[in-house]
Amino acid sequence: MVMSSVVNTYPLSSYTFGTKEPKMEKDTSVADRLARMKVNYMKEGMRTSVEGILLVQEHNHPHILLLQIGNTFCKLPGGRLKPGENEVEGLKRKLSSKLAANSTGLQPDWQIGECVAVWWRPNFETIMYPYCPPHITKPKECKKLFLVHLSEREYFAVPKNLKLLAVPLFELYDNVQRYGPVISTIPQQLSRFQFNMIHI
Amino acid sequence: MVMSSVVNTYPLSSYTFGTKEPKMEKDTSVADRLARMKVNYMKEGMRTSVEGILLVQEHNHPHILLLQIGNTFCKLPGGRLKPGENEVEGLKRKLSSKLAANSTGLQPDWQIGECVAVWWRPNFETIMYPYCPPHITKPKECKKLFLVHLSEREYFAVPKNLKLLAVPLFELYDNVQRYGPVISTIPQQLSRFQFNMIHI
Repeated sequence: MVMSSVVNTYPLSSYTFGTKEPKMEKDTSVADRLARMKVNYMKEGMRTSVEGILLVQEHNHPHILLLQIGNTFCKLPGGRLKPGENEVEGLKRKLSSKLAANSTGLQPDWQIGECVAVWWRPNFETIMYPYCPPHITKPKECKKLFLVHLSEREYFAVPKNLKLLAVPLFELYDNVQRYGPVISTIPQQLSRFQFNMIHI
Repeated sequence: MVMSSVVNTYPLSSYTFGTKEPKMEKDTSVADRLARMKVNYMKEGMRTSVEGILLVQEHNHPHILLLQIGNTFCKLPGGRLKPGENEVEGLKRKLSSKLAANSTGLQPDWQIGECVAVWWRPNFETIMYPYCPPHITKPKECKKLFLVHLSEREYFAVPKNLKLLAVPLFELYDNVQRYGPVISTIPQQLSRFQFNMIHI
């Protein structure tokens, strides 16, 4: 893991984007998703998911890479850990599955940085909190967000059913309606870092 | 400075609270405050302010110490650095001025921890952002929030015109109306820490 309060940020134009086969969502509705979560909880206990914050810059302002599904819903690249899986290794596996080419020669060198936020799901519901609420002894999910330090050049392969967007911090900030509570407060979580904007 | 992702949190009841002479606000209105800010900016350049997040626990849930002025407005203890003053030393000075007894023997041993958020004021206005907005080359204020690690026992002397409140994270979360954008997102900024709840 890379721990540093200075984050090198490269221009969006220094990265190359291609496509790969679609990665369909496992569930077609929120109700299906919560039902599957419940089944998995019975088998494996609390779900742990990990997501990556990948930063690029445009016009000297940090932008975050988000995967857009359909026309509205945006999410961070990441996903659920296997039972007992290491967080950093699991995040690398998920980032490769969502954003890397299938050929092993083109895998980005994922440098996982600091954990910047932890969110808790107390019940089999969509609502999450940035703390485990009092009186909740068996939370159903813990989601951790990590900074991912990108190299100067990378090739990303985006599943054909998804769009990869570079969204500026000023667009995310105070925009819970569009991005939800987790993504819309990423600007606050990143505010303590110093971005070293590198021009190539 | 103390850097640790584990934060020991002691019960509110392990601290003792007394009073001291009032610390009046320098300004009687927001307009006065912004006008004074402008005058100081002309003399000294960008204002840097530092504030402390002091944590206690009740019912195993973290609470933050806030100073209440009148019946509504709450703020973190802290204030403006002198030109050239070190951030950590300046925060200790401000915490003592707001919360310590006047006698030097009773000064808390302020353990300043990690910076958890940085907010920028682009103009002589009340609005602040958790990033320096694009095209702003001369921000007017930079405000930094630091975690303060309290010892097991402390004596706090609270100015008579202020009330010291211990506010739970679940009360701050998603409550921008009551606490403003800076304080209401402290739960998200603290979510990456593990609170070690100590019972005495």
